[in-house]
Amino acid sequence: MPSTLAHDSVQSLMKKVPEWEHKQDLIERVFEFDDYMSGMDFVNAVAEIAESANHHPDISIGYAKVTVLLTTHDKGGLTESDFEIAARIDNLVD
Amino acid sequence: MPSTLAHDSVQSLMKKVPEWEHKQDLIERVFEFDDYMSGMDFVNAVAEIAESANHHPDISIGYAKVTVLLTTHDKGGLTESDFEIAARIDNLVD
Repeated sequence: MPSTLAHDSVQSLMKKVPEWEHKQDLIERVFEFDDYMSGMDFVNAVAEIAESANHHPDISIGYAKVTVLLTTHDKGGLTESDFEIAARIDNLVD
Repeated sequence: MPSTLAHDSVQSLMKKVPEWEHKQDLIERVFEFDDYMSGMDFVNAVAEIAESANHHPDISIGYAKVTVLLTTHDKGGLTESDFEIAARIDNLVD
């Protein structure tokens, strides 16, 4: 498990996932869908990535809007793992 | 679609779903699971209920803890539909 990233490293990695918003110790992206079940399909795809990487984002489902929040809880901040997962999640939709 | 419930009606219906917490215009329950995928199975079962009833709770997934929040958005408060769905969700786990 990598350690938390320095500010400069976070800034650099953010360029690879520009759709994500950096908020203190986490990154967050809101995904919008045409309907509820499309959002649920996405949530299940994110869950598969999460489980395979053993790195589990927080997910909020509000009708057809899904918010994914990534941080490395047991390190207390952002690590490279968060950015790797963010890029894999982006690949689901972009 | 039923209209929002009076305070007395909410108090009465809360007795049928005692595991839920009443917060202003919504009811909320936190469900805990042994692992992430068990929580995801539950989320998918809730989504099926939501879609069949055309009444969609907000759901938050935090590792093996799933929070379900029910309100009737287009009525701006709690309706009988919320308590019907809450009871159906309870049946998934209790």
